[in-house]
Amino acid sequence: MIEQGAFPVEPWHIRETRLDLGLIAQSESIFALSNGHIGLRGNLDEGEPAGLPGTYLGSFYETRPLPYAEAGFGYPEDGQTLVDVTNGKVIRLLVDDEPFDVRYGELLEHERVLDLRAGTLLRTARWRSPAGKEVAITSTRLVSFEQRGVAAIEYVVEALDQFTRVTVQSELVSNEDQPVTSKDPRVSAALSRPLEPVMHEKGERGAVLLHRTRASQLMMAAGMDHEVEVPGRVEVETDAAPDYARTTIICGLRPGQRLRIVKYLAYGWSSLRTRPALRDQVSGALASARYSGWQGLLDGQRAYLDEFWDGADVEVEGDADIQQAVRFGLFHVLQASARAERRAIAGKGLTGPGYDGHAFWDTEAYVLPVLSYTVPEAAADALRWRASTLDLARARAEQLGLKGATFPWRTIRGHECSAYWPAGTAAWHVNADIAAAFERHRLVTGTDDLERECGLEVLVETARLWMSLGHHDRHGVWHIDGVTGPDEYTAIVRDNVFTNLMAAHNLRCAADASVRHPEQALALGVDTEEAAAWRDTADDVALPYDADLGVHQQCEGFTTFAEWDFAASTDRYPLLLHEPYVRLYPAQVIKQADLVLAMQFQGHAFTDDQKARNVDYYERRTVRDSSLSACTQAVMCAEVGHLELAHDYAYEAAAIDLRDLHHNTRDGLHMASLAGAWTALVAGFGGLRDDEGVLSLDPQLPESITRLTFRLRWRDVRLTVDIDHRHVRYSIRDGADARLTLRHAGELVEITSDAHVERELRRRRALLPPPPQPLGRRPAGRS
Amino acid sequence: MIEQGAFPVEPWHIRETRLDLGLIAQSESIFALSNGHIGLRGNLDEGEPAGLPGTYLGSFYETRPLPYAEAGFGYPEDGQTLVDVTNGKVIRLLVDDEPFDVRYGELLEHERVLDLRAGTLLRTARWRSPAGKEVAITSTRLVSFEQRGVAAIEYVVEALDQFTRVTVQSELVSNEDQPVTSKDPRVSAALSRPLEPVMHEKGERGAVLLHRTRASQLMMAAGMDHEVEVPGRVEVETDAAPDYARTTIICGLRPGQRLRIVKYLAYGWSSLRTRPALRDQVSGALASARYSGWQGLLDGQRAYLDEFWDGADVEVEGDADIQQAVRFGLFHVLQASARAERRAIAGKGLTGPGYDGHAFWDTEAYVLPVLSYTVPEAAADALRWRASTLDLARARAEQLGLKGATFPWRTIRGHECSAYWPAGTAAWHVNADIAAAFERHRLVTGTDDLERECGLEVLVETARLWMSLGHHDRHGVWHIDGVTGPDEYTAIVRDNVFTNLMAAHNLRCAADASVRHPEQALALGVDTEEAAAWRDTADDVALPYDADLGVHQQCEGFTTFAEWDFAASTDRYPLLLHEPYVRLYPAQVIKQADLVLAMQFQGHAFTDDQKARNVDYYERRTVRDSSLSACTQAVMCAEVGHLELAHDYAYEAAAIDLRDLHHNTRDGLHMASLAGAWTALVAGFGGLRDDEGVLSLDPQLPESITRLTFRLRWRDVRLTVDIDHRHVRYSIRDGADARLTLRHAGELVEITSDAHVERELRRRRALLPPPPQPLGRRPAGRS
Repeated sequence: MIEQGAFPVEPWHIRETRLDLGLIAQSESIFALSNGHIGLRGNLDEGEPAGLPGTYLGSFYETRPLPYAEAGFGYPEDGQTLVDVTNGKVIRLLVDDEPFDVRYGELLEHERVLDLRAGTLLRTARWRSPAGKEVAITSTRLVSFEQRGVAAIEYVVEALDQFTRVTVQSELVSNEDQPVTSKDPRVSAALSRPLEPVMHEKGERGAVLLHRTRASQLMMAAGMDHEVEVPGRVEVETDAAPDYARTTIICGLRPGQRLRIVKYLAYGWSSLRTRPALRDQVSGALASARYSGWQGLLDGQRAYLDEFWDGADVEVEGDADIQQAVRFGLFHVLQASARAERRAIAGKGLTGPGYDGHAFWDTEAYVLPVLSYTVPEAAADALRWRASTLDLARARAEQLGLKGATFPWRTIRGHECSAYWPAGTAAWHVNADIAAAFERHRLVTGTDDLERECGLEVLVETARLWMSLGHHDRHGVWHIDGVTGPDEYTAIVRDNVFTNLMAAHNLRCAADASVRHPEQALALGVDTEEAAAWRDTADDVALPYDADLGVHQQCEGFTTFAEWDFAASTDRYPLLLHEPYVRLYPAQVIKQADLVLAMQFQGHAFTDDQKARNVDYYERRTVRDSSLSACTQAVMCAEVGHLELAHDYAYEAAAIDLRDLHHNTRDGLHMASLAGAWTALVAGFGGLRDDEGVLSLDPQLPESITRLTFRLRWRDVRLTVDIDHRHVRYSIRDGADARLTLRHAGELVEITSDAHVERELRRRRALLPPPPQPLGRRPAGRS
Repeated sequence: MIEQGAFPVEPWHIRETRLDLGLIAQSESIFALSNGHIGLRGNLDEGEPAGLPGTYLGSFYETRPLPYAEAGFGYPEDGQTLVDVTNGKVIRLLVDDEPFDVRYGELLEHERVLDLRAGTLLRTARWRSPAGKEVAITSTRLVSFEQRGVAAIEYVVEALDQFTRVTVQSELVSNEDQPVTSKDPRVSAALSRPLEPVMHEKGERGAVLLHRTRASQLMMAAGMDHEVEVPGRVEVETDAAPDYARTTIICGLRPGQRLRIVKYLAYGWSSLRTRPALRDQVSGALASARYSGWQGLLDGQRAYLDEFWDGADVEVEGDADIQQAVRFGLFHVLQASARAERRAIAGKGLTGPGYDGHAFWDTEAYVLPVLSYTVPEAAADALRWRASTLDLARARAEQLGLKGATFPWRTIRGHECSAYWPAGTAAWHVNADIAAAFERHRLVTGTDDLERECGLEVLVETARLWMSLGHHDRHGVWHIDGVTGPDEYTAIVRDNVFTNLMAAHNLRCAADASVRHPEQALALGVDTEEAAAWRDTADDVALPYDADLGVHQQCEGFTTFAEWDFAASTDRYPLLLHEPYVRLYPAQVIKQADLVLAMQFQGHAFTDDQKARNVDYYERRTVRDSSLSACTQAVMCAEVGHLELAHDYAYEAAAIDLRDLHHNTRDGLHMASLAGAWTALVAGFGGLRDDEGVLSLDPQLPESITRLTFRLRWRDVRLTVDIDHRHVRYSIRDGADARLTLRHAGELVEITSDAHVERELRRRRALLPPPPQPLGRRPAGRS
C-alpha cells in the first residue's frame, strides 16, 4: 500500500517529491501516459531501474495456447496477451563516462508531476555523478490526444558546476526483458521475445523499426526523430539493428549551458497493411509531429484537455483527497479511451500488463456510463468496437449450442479468452451489460444513430441469447440456471437477481428498439411474435426473495447458505488467494457488490424498504476483494442514507491506485474503480439515475463535503449540477432555446439556459442504522 | 465398437480367431494379464505392431506439473501418471534373416485365447516368411497370482516345412515410444522417457535393469532369465545397456523340430529401498520362479483360480454372452486387485494408461462390493491402502479449511490429482463411499478387526469432514451446498440426495463404530457430544422431493431445471466431448445414475412407490455417458420390475469392453463396469442388499435367463444362491454347525449346512410401464 501523503494533495497535479524505488512499479502505473492508442508506462527515461517496462499499443496482442490439465468442450484454446512493444521512451545519459542512474552517485533532487490539465508528465532531477559532477535533468513527456500516433519527450540536460561532456543515447528497444510473473491469476502471462524483426531503417536523427508477432501475425512500426539544441558543437549519429535503434548525441556543456532534445515518437500497427504502408504511416506521423513542433503539441494537448474538463470536471469542496483522486481518475479514464477508436478499452487501460490487457464487462458497466455523460464520442467508439465483434460472439454462441450471440468474458480482439468458465462463460451478464450500455448511450445522447448503425443488432442477438439460456418452469416463472453474477465468490447458481433483472432489461430494450427500427428489425428476422415473447419473458423473470428476512436473495437460496466465518479470515484477503472456490461458492461471502449493483442499475425494481434492508444485509457479507465494489457500495449507501459510509466508499474507489489499496497497482490502474469515483460522487451524492429513461437526480452530501459541482451532457445540452448541504442548483449553458427536463427527487423540473432551477434539499433519513462490514473489511480510512 | 461375435462365446475363454490390426489396441486391453502388482498389456510378443505398449507396476508413477491457465487456491500443483515401465514381454523372432512381423509375409493362422481358469494368454500363429519358410509359434504368458513379483512366457517355435535358422531376441526394453495422445480428457498424459537408468547387469541367460523416475524418485527393477530347450546346437548370449537388455538364442530347426524358451520375468519397485536391495529382490524372484519351473507356475496359477472361482463364480443359463462376460469381468477384477497389497486399485486396473492410472471412487463404490463378497482379503488390502493415505487426506482438508479428512477424487499415491474441482474436489461423496466400503466390509466379513486396525479412524475423520461441509438452516434442516454428486453433468448444487444420504450413513457409521471401540474413539478425541451431533445431523439431512411430480430431486431444484433437447444431440455422445458444461450443468440431462444409485445403496430411505416413480423419471433423462451407470440402472430396473430392461443394462455393463461400447477400451478396461456386471446379476436379479445390516436377497429373473447361480461369502460361511423362474434355493457348505440368517423377500430365513432353504418366487409386478430412454440411448442391443 502507498502511504497516505506519498503524493501531496493538489487539485490538478499528482506530484511525487522523492523517488521511492520500493514503489517504482506502482508509480509507473500512476504516471502512465496514454491516448487510448499508445500507452507509455511511467518508466524512468534512462530505462532502469524499472518495475515493469511497458509500452503498449491498443489491442496489439499475441496469442498463446491456454493450457488445461483437464480440458472441456468449448474451452478457448488460445489466449490473447497485450504485448510490450518497442520502447521509445528510453533516453540514456552519460555524464562524462558515467551513466546517469539513480542508484549510483547522489540523487540530490527528484520530482515527477503528472499535470492533469497539461496532459504531461514532468520530471526534474538534480544528480551528482560518482565523479562529482552535478547536472540537472528535466524531461517532459506527452502522448498526444490530438495526433493519435504520436508521443514526444522534451529532454533537457544542464551542467551545473563544471564543464561536462554529455552523451545522450535516445533509443528504440524491442523485446525488452520482463520480470518473472507470480502465480496470482490477476497478473499477466509472460511472453518471451514476442516481436519478430521485420525491418529497420535509419536516418541521421532517427530510425524506424518494424516487427511482427509470431502467432497473431500483427505488424507494428515504431519511429523516432529528434530535434537538438545546444550552444556549442554537437555530434549526432544514428544506428539501427533488428531489435534496437539508437541516436547518439554528444556535446560539451559549461556550467549553466543546456542540451535540449525533443524526441518525437510515432507508432502504428495493423493486421492487414504492408510493411511499406506501415513504415510510411509512422514516418508521416513523425513529419506531422515535427511540423507541429514541441510547443504545438503542448498547446494541442492543453486545448484538448480544456475541452474535456469543461464538460466533465467534478469539483469537491471539503475533501481535497477526493478532489484530487476523482480528477486523477477522470484523466486516466480519458487516457484509456480518448483515441481507442473501435478497439477494446482494457480493464487497466494501457497502463500495465495486468489481466493480460483484457477488456471485461467493466468497460460497459463502469467506464462507459462516465464516458456517455462526458465524452460521448469515446463511448460510441467503444460500443462500435463491441458491435464489430458480433460475428465472433455469434460463433461463440453457436459453439455453445445457444441462440444469438454471447460476448466474451475477457478478450482483446473479441475471442473468448477466459480459461475458467464458472467465472467466465457462465457470467452471461456481460451481454446484458453491453446491451444496457447501448441503451444508456441512446438515452444520454438522445439519438438513435448508433442504435441504427449497430446497436439494434447487438440488442436483438443478446435478447436471443437470453431466450435460449433461460426457461419457464411449470408455473410460468422464468429462470436462468447455472449462472454466475458479478460476485465471483458465488457461482453456477439459479436466478442471480442482477443477471435476471439485466436480462429482462435487455429483452425489453431489444423489443423497444425493434419498434423504433421496424425495417431493420425485420431484416434481422425479428417478427412481432418474437418481440412479444421478449416482453412477456421479461415480465416472468424470477427474483428470489427471502420473505422471512425481508431481503432479496442474491441468487436462489443465498440467504440460507452457510455463513462465512469472517473472524477466521481477517488475514486472508483477498480470499481468492487463500481460500478454495469449493468453500467460497456455497457460503454467504461476497466478493463484490452484486445484488447491490442490481439496485443501482435497476433501482425501479426495488422499494425503498427493500433497498434499505438489502444494503444492510449485503454490507455485512461483502469483503470487497474486487476493485469493482466500493463505488457501487458508495452509490447505494448514499441512496439509503448512510452518507458517511458512502463517503468512505467513494474515497476507497477514488484512492484505489493513488494508495495502492488492492496491492496490484504495479500491474496497471483499475479503470473501473477510477471511473467509479465519478460514479460514487455523481450517482451517489448527486443521485444520478437513468434506468427509467429519464435523467433523475436526488442530491445529498455527506457532512464534510461542503459543496459538489459536476457537469454532464444530456442530449445536446451541458448541465451543471451544483450541490451544497441545503440546496441544489441545475443550470445549462447552450444557447437561448436549450431546455432540459429532469427529475429532481421525484419531481419533474424544466431547466432552460436563462432559467436555472434551484431546489432545497430535504435531509435524507436512513431507515436502518449504518451496517457493519465483515471484520477487518471496513472501507479504507479517509484522512 | 467391436462387432458382436468378434470373440466367439465360450464360457471360460475369450478367443480371438484372427488378428484385426484395427482393433489391436482394444485387444491389448482385453488380453492384459495382471495380478494387481504387475500388469502386462496383451501386446504381441514381437513388440509391434502395437496399439499402446504397456507394462505397469501397481502405483509406480511419475509426477508432472498440472498446468492452469487461470489458477485457483487449493488446486493441486502436481499430477501423478502411471509409468509404462521396462517391457519384459518382448520376444523377437528371426526366421533366417527375416523378422517375424504379422504385417509382412503371410499370416496363415493367428489365434489368441485368454483362459479364465488357467490364468494364461495363449497365442498360436502359423506364418510364412517373405522368403517362403513356414513356422508355427506358440506363446503362453502368465502373470503369477502366487508369486507376486513374477511373470513368465513359454515361447515355442517350430519349423514346419524346411530347415530354418531361428534367432530369438528376448528383451527388456525401457522408455518405449508411446503414440501421441488425444485431447479427450479421459486418456492419459504423455510422459516422455520417464525412466532414468540406474544400473544394468547381465548374466549369460538373463539381465537386470534398474531405473528411477525423475520427479517422483521411485526406483524399479526388471529382470529376466531364460530356459532353452532345442534338439541341436544352440547359442545363447546376453547384452545389456542402460535402456535395454537382450538375450539372443540361435539355433537351426529341421521340419517338426521345436525351440522352446521359458522366459521368467521379475519386477519390483520401491521409494525407499536401495539399488542392491531391489536388484537382489528381482534376482530372488527369478530364482524362485526357476525353482517352481514353468509347469509349477501354471499349476499354481490354476490352483489359485480354482479357489477363486469356487467362491465367486456366477453361472448364467440362457444368456451365453452374459455368462462369458461376467466371468471375463470377475477375472479382470481379480487381476486388478488380487496382489495389489495396499496399493490403489486403478479405474482401469493395470490394463492400460487411461485416466493416468488413477483410482477413483469407483474402487470403493463398484469394485470393493464384489471383492468383499468374493475375495475379502483383497478388499481389506484396498481399504488398508485408503487408510494409509489418511494423513494426506487430513492435510488436504486442512488446506481447504475443513475439519477431518478428505480423500482425493483421483490419485495414485494419495495426493489429490484432480485439476477440475467442480467434478473433483466438490464431489465430496468419495469420502462417504470409502466409509461405506469399510462398513460393508465389516458387515460381510462379520469382524471388527479391520475397523479396529484402521477403519474407525477413517470413519471418524470423514464424519468430521461432513460436519464442517454441511450446515443447518434456520429451520434445522441440514444442507450440503456447492456439492457435486455422481452425475458429472450436474455440479455445484445444493443437497445432492446421493451425497446427503451417504453422508448421513457415514455419520451414523462413525457414531456406531465409536460405540464399538470406545477407547480408541476417545483417543481420537470423539466424545459423546460429538457422536450425538453426528447422529442428530444424520437425522436432519435434506432430501429434496418434488411433491407435484412425486419424485425425488437429484438435487435441490433438479426437476425444475430446463429439459435437455435429446432430439438435437443424438449424434453428440458422449456429450462431454460435444457440449459445454455451462449448458449441461443446469439442464435435466444426467451422465450416470445418481439418484438411482442412491436408491441402490440406501434403498431403505425410499418407498417402493418412490423407487418406481424415481426410476421412471430418471431413466428418461440419463444418457449413460459414464461406464458406471448401466450396472446401477440394471439393479434398480430389476427392483422396480422392469426385468427385461434390467437384462439389457446387465448386458451393457458386462459387454462394455468385449464390445468396446464406450470406444475407449484401447486405453484400458473399465473395472467398475466389469465389477458392475456381477452387481447387475447378483444385486439386480439376485436382489442382494446389505444397507440395513442384514444380508437380504429377493431374486427374480428376466425371461431369457432360465437359471442364475452365484456364490458369495458372508462372515465365515459360503452361500450358494440358485435361482430359476419359480424358485430360489439357498445353501451353505461349511461344516455341520455353520448357519446363516438372511432376509428373503422381507422374510428372515435361517440356513444351515444340512438344511438348505428353498422358496417359491412371486412374480414381481412393475408399478409403471417400462420407461423410455433419451433418444438413441437405449441400452446396447443384446443378441
